Amino acid sequence: MQKTTEKKDTDLNDIMTMADNPEVIAFSGGLPDPALFPEKALAQAYQKAISQDRGVFQYHSAQGNLQLRQQLANRCQKDGQINAQAENVLITQGGQQAITLIAEMVLSKGCGIAVESPTYLGALNVFDQYQPNYYQIPLDENGMEIDKLAEQLELHPEIKLIYTVPDFQNPTGTSMSLTRRKQLADLAAKYQVYVLEDSPYRDLTYTGSQLPTIKSFDQTGHVIFISSFSKILSPALRTGWVIAASDVIGKLTELKAASDLCSPEITQRSICCYLTDNSLDQHIAQLCQNYQKKQKVMLGAIKDYFPSWAKATSPKGGFFIWVELPEKLDAGKLLIESVLPKYQVCYVPASAVYAGASKKNGFRLSYVGNSPDKIVEGIKRLGTCLKHV
Amino acid sequence: MQKTTEKKDTDLNDIMTMADNPEVIAFSGGLPDPALFPEKALAQAYQKAISQDRGVFQYHSAQGNLQLRQQLANRCQKDGQINAQAENVLITQGGQQAITLIAEMVLSKGCGIAVESPTYLGALNVFDQYQPNYYQIPLDENGMEIDKLAEQLELHPEIKLIYTVPDFQNPTGTSMSLTRRKQLADLAAKYQVYVLEDSPYRDLTYTGSQLPTIKSFDQTGHVIFISSFSKILSPALRTGWVIAASDVIGKLTELKAASDLCSPEITQRSICCYLTDNSLDQHIAQLCQNYQKKQKVMLGAIKDYFPSWAKATSPKGGFFIWVELPEKLDAGKLLIESVLPKYQVCYVPASAVYAGASKKNGFRLSYVGNSPDKIVEGIKRLGTCLKHV
Repeated sequence: MQKTTEKKDTDLNDIMTMADNPEVIAFSGGLPDPALFPEKALAQAYQKAISQDRGVFQYHSAQGNLQLRQQLANRCQKDGQINAQAENVLITQGGQQAITLIAEMVLSKGCGIAVESPTYLGALNVFDQYQPNYYQIPLDENGMEIDKLAEQLELHPEIKLIYTVPDFQNPTGTSMSLTRRKQLADLAAKYQVYVLEDSPYRDLTYTGSQLPTIKSFDQTGHVIFISSFSKILSPALRTGWVIAASDVIGKLTELKAASDLCSPEITQRSICCYLTDNSLDQHIAQLCQNYQKKQKVMLGAIKDYFPSWAKATSPKGGFFIWVELPEKLDAGKLLIESVLPKYQVCYVPASAVYAGASKKNGFRLSYVGNSPDKIVEGIKRLGTCLKHV
Repeated sequence: MQKTTEKKDTDLNDIMTMADNPEVIAFSGGLPDPALFPEKALAQAYQKAISQDRGVFQYHSAQGNLQLRQQLANRCQKDGQINAQAENVLITQGGQQAITLIAEMVLSKGCGIAVESPTYLGALNVFDQYQPNYYQIPLDENGMEIDKLAEQLELHPEIKLIYTVPDFQNPTGTSMSLTRRKQLADLAAKYQVYVLEDSPYRDLTYTGSQLPTIKSFDQTGHVIFISSFSKILSPALRTGWVIAASDVIGKLTELKAASDLCSPEITQRSICCYLTDNSLDQHIAQLCQNYQKKQKVMLGAIKDYFPSWAKATSPKGGFFIWVELPEKLDAGKLLIESVLPKYQVCYVPASAVYAGASKKNGFRLSYVGNSPDKIVEGIKRLGTCLKHV
């Protein structure tokens, strides 16, 4: 729960650049496996959408295409147990723009934000611009420790936003328990604080069943749910969405209009066509099968090649495994001095995912983007490196 | 040069919504004529880009596709006399996101901004969020009055940004003279203030030849040029670009990454394919021919049907004509009470395009989106309305 606004020494962009070298086995990026993009179905969807009528090339509403918003509202009712209509949906440029717009609506310079510790580095990149006071809430195997959050909310009325990734959290892979989801919705109502529920990995459940969203327990309109097609269809669509109370959607739509007028109609109609003509759920089932296999391979290789003091999580879905190192080790320093130049492997170091770079002894591994062989080879190299520190 | 931060009573979104009713003859939106979208060529470009390789569906760099940046740098060298390389280009979600990112880089709460009076309402929507002190610089037939700008810069060191639309200005249609372009670049250097040169209408020159950009006179890196494909190809591409010194591009790229990670690769590669396989200049020549004809029709109808006290500009290109009314008339009030409900015509009223809604007696007409018949009908209705005030 350290409170700090120091500059991080590694940012999203640097890591993206590092991973660009083809010699490097990159476990760093949250990039889906390109071999699994449904390229034919997407190509057909684009062709169909573009040939419908010339209106597809025009400006459209800032809130987004009505049919797509309806399709997403239906999907959220079914999968997230959220009672949403098209008016409760805003289309954004990926989940990232959703975070940006919500931050714009809620935050002001120097306000307080409660975040998981560690958390998604792309969200920190947005929040950092407000030079906030971070209240870092620890995670255990049931997600964010809600009793510790409650203490902070009671002590610090300056907290304006609670940011959480409740499903297969980025970067640790842990999920928030059902009880805590209810407790979190109750706390948001009690303290009149917005909860940003960021759930791009939710559909990628490998074992067990999906839990209801935090939003499904929201009685007061304080929970804002966001997700995107980046992990379940294609990141190049740059299409995410917000589900919220209609007054919140109204404010966010104004901010969206000021920010970039509207999202591309061509893309939105293409996604509508894809969803109408294909089973997204069937595609997701294929992703889950493939990614679960790779996760097993990575966890097996970690067991085989990592020293026993490196502790890895075993998530039930999503993209990531978190590895905790002994406190004295700085994973960022190790990455730049040894892992990357000598072993040609890349991960996301702790400093990038703890607010204010407040912890250094850990790293995030993504298992989805590489072949099983590359995963074993990369983990083997990384294990050799760790055994020599 | 009034200095104010009052809330405007009409915003972009409201106007977009008003114009949505099919009964209304909308001269309000800056929407291109959909009949002129090169739909076949764009459909082919998308098909080609999507079938190239699976990488098109993946995340890509925040700065944008290298080939597209190279194509844009070449185009700017040829047409704008700007000495730019791919490293000087950032791809954005339309020109609007370019304005948003530049504002984020340069502005802080309560700082000063110099804007043309009137100016582009979408830019005011961005700037208003910083609650700035606006220094409104009047325009004459040679664009922004640079001597008045110089006075304000000398008096107010708090001015951090000069925003201008030098080519076929939005909303007046006037263009900045060559002399003033040079003077503006010199002032930016002298006072170390950024100039945001926003030029989406530049290529739509109907008579006379293009003037060099302000950026072409920039010796110190203080001029940031932006443009977009929205007016010359299709707004649904949501693709604009920034041309600036490489350190400025570096900062803006960081802000872009935090804001929405990257622009969609599918769109960027499709534009590359379009530019490689088609002549954009030939397409623009067709747009100019069509839009110039419509402008003549509108100016003719204004002469025939408007009372003589309504003074219209005669721009040499672009989308817009500005109509100045006698001081006592409030064009916004007139729009809501009479023009829209009784005559079913829509325009952009002065209050939306003067910072702080500081003037009310004028409106912007766009002539590009309607057929000549509709233009005559709409102007006739509007003239009848004006004659009855």
